[in-house]
Amino acid sequence: MRSVKVKLGKRSYDIIIGKNIISLLPRYVKKLNMGDSAFIISNPYVRNRYSQGLTKALNKGGISSKIKTIPDTEKSKSILTLSEAINSLAKFDLKKRVFIIALGGGVVGDLSGLVASVYKRGIPYIQIPTTLLAQVDSSIGGKTAVDLREGKNLVGAFYQPSLVFSDVSLLESLDPRQLRAGLAEVIKYGIIKDSRLFGYLEKEYKDIVKLKTWALEYVVSASSKIKADIVGRDEREAKGIRTTLNFGHTAGHAIEAAADFSSYTHGEAVALGMLIASDISLKLGLISGNLNARIEALINKYGLPVTIEGVSLRAIMKAIYRDKKFSGEKNKFVLIAGLGKVKIVENVPFKVVEEAISNRIK
Amino acid sequence: MRSVKVKLGKRSYDIIIGKNIISLLPRYVKKLNMGDSAFIISNPYVRNRYSQGLTKALNKGGISSKIKTIPDTEKSKSILTLSEAINSLAKFDLKKRVFIIALGGGVVGDLSGLVASVYKRGIPYIQIPTTLLAQVDSSIGGKTAVDLREGKNLVGAFYQPSLVFSDVSLLESLDPRQLRAGLAEVIKYGIIKDSRLFGYLEKEYKDIVKLKTWALEYVVSASSKIKADIVGRDEREAKGIRTTLNFGHTAGHAIEAAADFSSYTHGEAVALGMLIASDISLKLGLISGNLNARIEALINKYGLPVTIEGVSLRAIMKAIYRDKKFSGEKNKFVLIAGLGKVKIVENVPFKVVEEAISNRIK
Repeated sequence: MRSVKVKLGKRSYDIIIGKNIISLLPRYVKKLNMGDSAFIISNPYVRNRYSQGLTKALNKGGISSKIKTIPDTEKSKSILTLSEAINSLAKFDLKKRVFIIALGGGVVGDLSGLVASVYKRGIPYIQIPTTLLAQVDSSIGGKTAVDLREGKNLVGAFYQPSLVFSDVSLLESLDPRQLRAGLAEVIKYGIIKDSRLFGYLEKEYKDIVKLKTWALEYVVSASSKIKADIVGRDEREAKGIRTTLNFGHTAGHAIEAAADFSSYTHGEAVALGMLIASDISLKLGLISGNLNARIEALINKYGLPVTIEGVSLRAIMKAIYRDKKFSGEKNKFVLIAGLGKVKIVENVPFKVVEEAISNRIK
Repeated sequence: MRSVKVKLGKRSYDIIIGKNIISLLPRYVKKLNMGDSAFIISNPYVRNRYSQGLTKALNKGGISSKIKTIPDTEKSKSILTLSEAINSLAKFDLKKRVFIIALGGGVVGDLSGLVASVYKRGIPYIQIPTTLLAQVDSSIGGKTAVDLREGKNLVGAFYQPSLVFSDVSLLESLDPRQLRAGLAEVIKYGIIKDSRLFGYLEKEYKDIVKLKTWALEYVVSASSKIKADIVGRDEREAKGIRTTLNFGHTAGHAIEAAADFSSYTHGEAVALGMLIASDISLKLGLISGNLNARIEALINKYGLPVTIEGVSLRAIMKAIYRDKKFSGEKNKFVLIAGLGKVKIVENVPFKVVEEAISNRIK
C-alpha cells in the first residue's frame, strides 16, 4: 500500500493506493470524522461488480449507506442528473451526518464531487476511482463539473475530496481500450515530468498490460504524485502550473471534437495530441528527433493510435481555434524541451501547427 | 457615499452605500477587472423600475449586457430556475469575459450568486440589492442557495461577490411591509452588537420610515459594518461567531414554518423570534426587565408584530425541534446578556421555551 498527499493547507488529503484495500475504508472515514451515513453514487456496471464489497465494509464499520446509480455516459454529466442525485440524497439524509462516495470513473467522480460541493453548501466526499484514467487523473484535484449543450464542464466547482482510495484490484476487469485511455495520461506524466516513469513504461510493458499489482501500484502512485504536486501548487489553474497538464490536450480535444466525441476515446485523442505537440516541439527545435521517436514508439507500444483516421484537417483546425484555452486570436501550446521539461509556447505559427496535424493524418 | 470592507484576504470586497450611485458602477467594474459583458439577473418589478438606468450606465462604460428575469417568489429558488438561468447565461457568453449582476432582493441575490459560483467553476458577480433586507443582510457574506422540497437553502455555495452596491434610492419604492421586514434585521444588529444603532433607531424613527437618505445611509452602513465584521471573522459559520446572527431566528423560523410561510414575512417572524429570545433571556436572569421592555417598544414602534396570531403553540414547538440548528435532542438559543452582548445558551429548559412562546400567543 502506498500513500500520496495532496498538500492544500487545511484542505489537504491522502491518496491511498493498494490492492484489495476497500475493507480499510471505514477506518479512514472515522479518522477523518466524515459522518455516519454514506450516499454512494455509482454506475450500473461498477455497482454490480463492486458495490456489495463496499457496503459490507461500511456496514461492518457502523456506517449506513444508500446507492444512487447513474448511467455511465457523458450524457449523465447533466444538470438533470445532478438534480436527481441531489433530490435522492436529500431524501436519504435523515439528520445523520451524511457524506458522499463516488464509486466509478470520471463521469461518476465529476458529478459526485459537484453534488458534494453544493449540498448544504458542501459536505465531505471520497473518490473511489474504478478506471485507470480516474485513478491517475480525474479523481485527484477537485475539479468537479457537469456539461451544458454549449460545452463540456461548463457548470462546476473546485471542491476537493477528503480522501482518494485507488484500489488497483478494481482495474482487473477493465476493458483494454479503457486501460489504454488511462495509460495515455500515464505516458503524459512521464513525458512532462518524470523520465523514470517514462523509462518504466518502456521497460515494464508486459507486466503493466497484464495488470500485475506491483506494476499498477507503481504506475498509479507515480502518476498520482505528479498530479498531486501540480494541484498543490496551482489548485485553481491560476498560475499556469496546472496548465502543463494540458500537454497533448489542445490538439487532442480538437481531434475528439472534430470526430464528434465518438470515434476516439479521450485517451486515444490525447495520445494523438501528444504526438502532435511532440512533432511541433521537434519542428521548433526544442527536442531531438530521437526523443520524438521514443515518444511515438511508446504510444504505439501501448496500442494507442499514432495516425489520425476519418477526421479532416479542416475540422481539426476549426476546433483548435474554438478552444477555450485560446484567448482571442492567440494560440498557446504546451510543448516539451526535453523529457520531463514542459515549455508553454504562445503564437506557434499557424503553418507549423497545420503541418504537424496534416502529417499525422493517414 | 460610504464604503464598508468585507475582509477576507484575497476575496475581500467593498460594500458601497449611497444615493443614486448606479452611474458609478462601470468605474468599479473596470477597477476590479471583472469583465466586458454583464449578465443581469432580476425580477419583473425591479426590471421595469431600475434596469434601464443600469444598462444605460453599463453601456456608457462600454459594457454590454443582457437581462434574465425570474419571478420574485421563493419558488424561483429552485434547481429548475437555476438551470434555466445557467443555460441563458451560456447562450449569452460569447467568449467575452462575462460577469453577473444580481439586481433584486434576496431571491435574486441567492440564486445569482449560485449561478456565478458554478458557471465555469466561478465567475465574478456584483450584488445590487434592491430591498432593505437584502442591503443589510443577504447581499453580504456570500451565502448563495436554492431550495429543495426537503428544505430551504439545501443546495448552495459559499461564494463571495466582488462588490456590493447598495443604492438607498432603490428603497424609495419599497412596500412598507418589505421595509419593516428589513428593519427587523436592523433592530437585530442593534440588539446583538451596536447600542448606538439601537439608540438611533429609537430616536430617528420618523426620518427612517420617511426614507430620508441620510437616515437610510446610516442604517444600511451601520448594519453592513456589523455583518461584514462577522463574516470576515467566520466566513463559513464554523466558529460560532456567525451563529450570533441567528438571534431571533430559531423561534422566528419555527413561527414562519408553523404559519406555512404565508401569514408572516421573514422579518415579522424574526421580530417575534427576537422578542421570544429576549423573554427567555429575561427569564434566565440574563437581562433586565427594562431592556426587555425597550426591545418590545422598538419592535412595536416600527409596526412589527409583538404577539403571535393564528399559529398554535404545538405547531411552533414541533417546528423548533425540527430545526437543523439543533443537533440531536439538544436545543441551542442565541440569547442576550445586555444590549450588544450575545450569549449562546444550550439546553434551555423546555418549559422556559414553551412559556416564552405561549406568552406571546394572542
